[in-house]
Amino acid sequence: MERKTLLIECPDAQGLIAQITNICYKHQLNIIRNTEYVDPVTSRFYMRTELEGYFNDQTLLFDLDRALPQGSERRLVGRGKKRVVILVTKESHCLGDILMKVFDGSLELDIAAVVGNHADLQTLATRFDIPFHHIDHTTVSREQHEQLLLVQIEQYNPDYLVLAKFMRVLSPAFVARFPHRIINIHHSFLPAFIGAKPYHQAFERGVKIIGATAHFVTNDLDEGPIISQSVANVDHTYSALDMAKTGRDVEKNTLSQALALVVDDRVFVHGNKTVIL
Amino acid sequence: MERKTLLIECPDAQGLIAQITNICYKHQLNIIRNTEYVDPVTSRFYMRTELEGYFNDQTLLFDLDRALPQGSERRLVGRGKKRVVILVTKESHCLGDILMKVFDGSLELDIAAVVGNHADLQTLATRFDIPFHHIDHTTVSREQHEQLLLVQIEQYNPDYLVLAKFMRVLSPAFVARFPHRIINIHHSFLPAFIGAKPYHQAFERGVKIIGATAHFVTNDLDEGPIISQSVANVDHTYSALDMAKTGRDVEKNTLSQALALVVDDRVFVHGNKTVIL
Amino acid sequence: MERKTLLIECPDAQGLIAQITNICYKHQLNIIRNTEYVDPVTSRFYMRTELEGYFNDQTLLFDLDRALPQGSERRLVGRGKKRVVILVTKESHCLGDILMKVFDGSLELDIAAVVGNHADLQTLATRFDIPFHHIDHTTVSREQHEQLLLVQIEQYNPDYLVLAKFMRVLSPAFVARFPHRIINIHHSFLPAFIGAKPYHQAFERGVKIIGATAHFVTNDLDEGPIISQSVANVDHTYSALDMAKTGRDVEKNTLSQALALVVDDRVFVHGNKTVIL
Amino acid sequence: MERKTLLIECPDAQGLIAQITNICYKHQLNIIRNTEYVDPVTSRFYMRTELEGYFNDQTLLFDLDRALPQGSERRLVGRGKKRVVILVTKESHCLGDILMKVFDGSLELDIAAVVGNHADLQTLATRFDIPFHHIDHTTVSREQHEQLLLVQIEQYNPDYLVLAKFMRVLSPAFVARFPHRIINIHHSFLPAFIGAKPYHQAFERGVKIIGATAHFVTNDLDEGPIISQSVANVDHTYSALDMAKTGRDVEKNTLSQALALVVDDRVFVHGNKTVIL
Repeated sequence: MERKTLLIECPDAQGLIAQITNICYKHQLNIIRNTEYVDPVTSRFYMRTELEGYFNDQTLLFDLDRALPQGSERRLVGRGKKRVVILVTKESHCLGDILMKVFDGSLELDIAAVVGNHADLQTLATRFDIPFHHIDHTTVSREQHEQLLLVQIEQYNPDYLVLAKFMRVLSPAFVARFPHRIINIHHSFLPAFIGAKPYHQAFERGVKIIGATAHFVTNDLDEGPIISQSVANVDHTYSALDMAKTGRDVEKNTLSQALALVVDDRVFVHGNKTVIL
Repeated sequence: MERKTLLIECPDAQGLIAQITNICYKHQLNIIRNTEYVDPVTSRFYMRTELEGYFNDQTLLFDLDRALPQGSERRLVGRGKKRVVILVTKESHCLGDILMKVFDGSLELDIAAVVGNHADLQTLATRFDIPFHHIDHTTVSREQHEQLLLVQIEQYNPDYLVLAKFMRVLSPAFVARFPHRIINIHHSFLPAFIGAKPYHQAFERGVKIIGATAHFVTNDLDEGPIISQSVANVDHTYSALDMAKTGRDVEKNTLSQALALVVDDRVFVHGNKTVIL
Repeated sequence: MERKTLLIECPDAQGLIAQITNICYKHQLNIIRNTEYVDPVTSRFYMRTELEGYFNDQTLLFDLDRALPQGSERRLVGRGKKRVVILVTKESHCLGDILMKVFDGSLELDIAAVVGNHADLQTLATRFDIPFHHIDHTTVSREQHEQLLLVQIEQYNPDYLVLAKFMRVLSPAFVARFPHRIINIHHSFLPAFIGAKPYHQAFERGVKIIGATAHFVTNDLDEGPIISQSVANVDHTYSALDMAKTGRDVEKNTLSQALALVVDDRVFVHGNKTVIL
Repeated sequence: MERKTLLIECPDAQGLIAQITNICYKHQLNIIRNTEYVDPVTSRFYMRTELEGYFNDQTLLFDLDRALPQGSERRLVGRGKKRVVILVTKESHCLGDILMKVFDGSLELDIAAVVGNHADLQTLATRFDIPFHHIDHTTVSREQHEQLLLVQIEQYNPDYLVLAKFMRVLSPAFVARFPHRIINIHHSFLPAFIGAKPYHQAFERGVKIIGATAHFVTNDLDEGPIISQSVANVDHTYSALDMAKTGRDVEKNTLSQALALVVDDRVFVHGNKTVIL
């Protein structure tokens, strides 16, 4: 007996759930958990089904393809760990939290490598026996730097790139290589404080709550589909530095939550939003 | 075209979702929203389906009954407002919040009457044109008091009783008249501080967070299935009175959240727990 | 024995706390609660002291004035209720929450009157025996409308104006009449979603958390000093309308929290921020 | 110029703040931040003052001792790191979070050693170059085990012991050696679910929120003064295991928050409660 997750998105139609669950039933697959969502604006149908049984992937997908309307996407995902490459700059808290969660089994990821534009976090990665590649951005052009990043990243053939406080803006060409496969943690409660130095902006504005946002990266800076957000209370005694310090915990928790959802194949991208089933 | 909600619970079996959604499909009913849950311990299956179309209730339920396994319960619920009787003592914040939410349409309830063992909230109910019955408990026995409550309550034939800071313990005989139909707000984060004066208990214990719990009433005091809980931060500067004052907002928000779930037919009772679909 | 609150702000100087508390001691006033704050950027000193004893206001303030550096502001505030005029449009939830809290004594305010540019909330105000003035904005110019508002408001000589979902932008001239004395609830987690229809903006952006912001009104729209903020979780199943509905509770709770702080003389304005002691 | 923190607790008396701040002023020490609290029940006065200047510790304390009433305790604390020994069993998340925070400077602690009754976390401690002592409890009596723990702990002369998921109950004799110097993380929202397996208890009870509590250890199990608490939402889909997994993040964040407060000398113990200034 195996467990797999069936992920479907397609234009809505009457009887869809019946048809899909019928096919699963004919394949003698037991539905462990099932969630659907129909977007009322676009009438797009999303479904995530955890199945248990003896799988014949090919015939199952064949049967589904005959039943599903045009414009459908479907995937049958096994339980293996997702492989990620983590990009970092100097700050360690997000990388550290992921390393600790992988270490204790809370996050079922395979961290193939850590890549930094600075060498600061080499020791940390090495302590957890993860390969670290320092790719300095100061001696090369932006294009060359991204080219060097790509060479290192692609040897690992990762499912996802995780920007764990990677403080460089990636070019559209780079992003296009990994559509909806780059996850970033932004250190503000987007769309507040887009851009640089959000904690300084938050401090100047005198907010009483700060936040962090984990999102897929698209070509528009800080504008990709949001996966998760969380917040923390602050007050007038907080300097911009205190906010940043408090923010670290919010950032690492938010990124880890987003990764847990992605690892579980629970995140669909729907235009500039996410549907989380 | 109408909208109704189909609520099913039964022992789990392979193909259940397929069978149920097939029947809906044959009846040309469109599934607007669908949620299922199988309890892994008891293998009990729960399903809530919002349907749209032209309903023939009798044949739909007939078809379902033929398909569902023994031990099933199913209901088809229209969109009408639930009728409630609200029981109160002296504190106004929970009653007030419900009145305001019904006033502005946030909560689709029909408040048939307010019944108080004190007369303090008569003015408030009257201001919103709701009948108020003062049933004094000081001049009669407990049995007689409950008998008098019942007489007033039953004339309204309510779907639910809401204990909005009703500070009397109800007898098993009374509770048995309204199985899973009495909703209470308890002024603590259950199971902490069961029983009387929870804010004094919380103050004495020096907690840093207080809470409130909305739950169905069963025979065991403060022990029924929990519908919703929420919390607020406190610190050493809070007296028991300050905690109670802060607690009022938590209580009213928690009770209103629970009522919103009940109004939407989203709450199943499962042993001593709730399944919220 | 009386209780009063001493509020001081001035340029910081060595020995300030000693000097001020010495003066209180000489006046045989007992310090019940004392909080200070020095802004590290501007070196401005803020102090709030709850005192108990027999007050000779004039000599106390005289002694303080001799001790405090140039550029000081100080007030000695008695325990009387603040008088407010509440401005509304059509939505009732914020007004309703304030009415209920004043009704049950949770908020020590004297609501002198409610003024609406629509008549929708007349019934609600009247139910609580509060004068309601409908000042229609559709038949007069903006200047005339504000003039009519002022006439009604000023007869009550309020300490504060509360914009409880008042959906009109006030002119700089109007705002200048009530410096740091107009409190607004904005239905977003500022500075995200400044301007109109924030819930639609939030829905379009696909956020996972929505919020509300209570702030003093200044000439810049949605830009005044923030008093309090709070948030609620949402997900992809929320329409803009659902967000607005969830937001109502966040709005009313946030506004009431801000009013509770203002009522307690705990809010200092410091440039475009607040210091809350 | 140095920075030190003055911590005072004593019976309340008129003019205390004036006297203490006068002494600081005479010593030409600048008050950076000052907080006081008087417990209204016991009339005990607490004060925490961050001072900047040139310190003559001996004469400052001498002057204070002459001014303060009988029954006073005062300490002048420099800015050095607190030294801790961390006790663990098998779970790594709390230890890991502390290690990461010390690594990146978020938590100014000196981790002298990690002591485990199991050897599971040896690798983790070693990766961060922290001495690890495995003191097996299965081959010795309880008394002997605690004796062996003490021998290892006392060689490091720690300011605090941190029980980072140390799953053994300490004897009164052991606890008495470190009064208010042992900090524990309990995996429930105390006083709910005291004792063993709180997540199983929470699961059985069907709660909608779980929590964690960091507290000083006293002789009564799970009953010491609470330093910090936090919570997370759960629902009916969470197994006891899922709750425990979610709880890990709550636990590590709560313990780290408590440690940050202790490191900053902000926590006073007041009977069975804490005052946090």
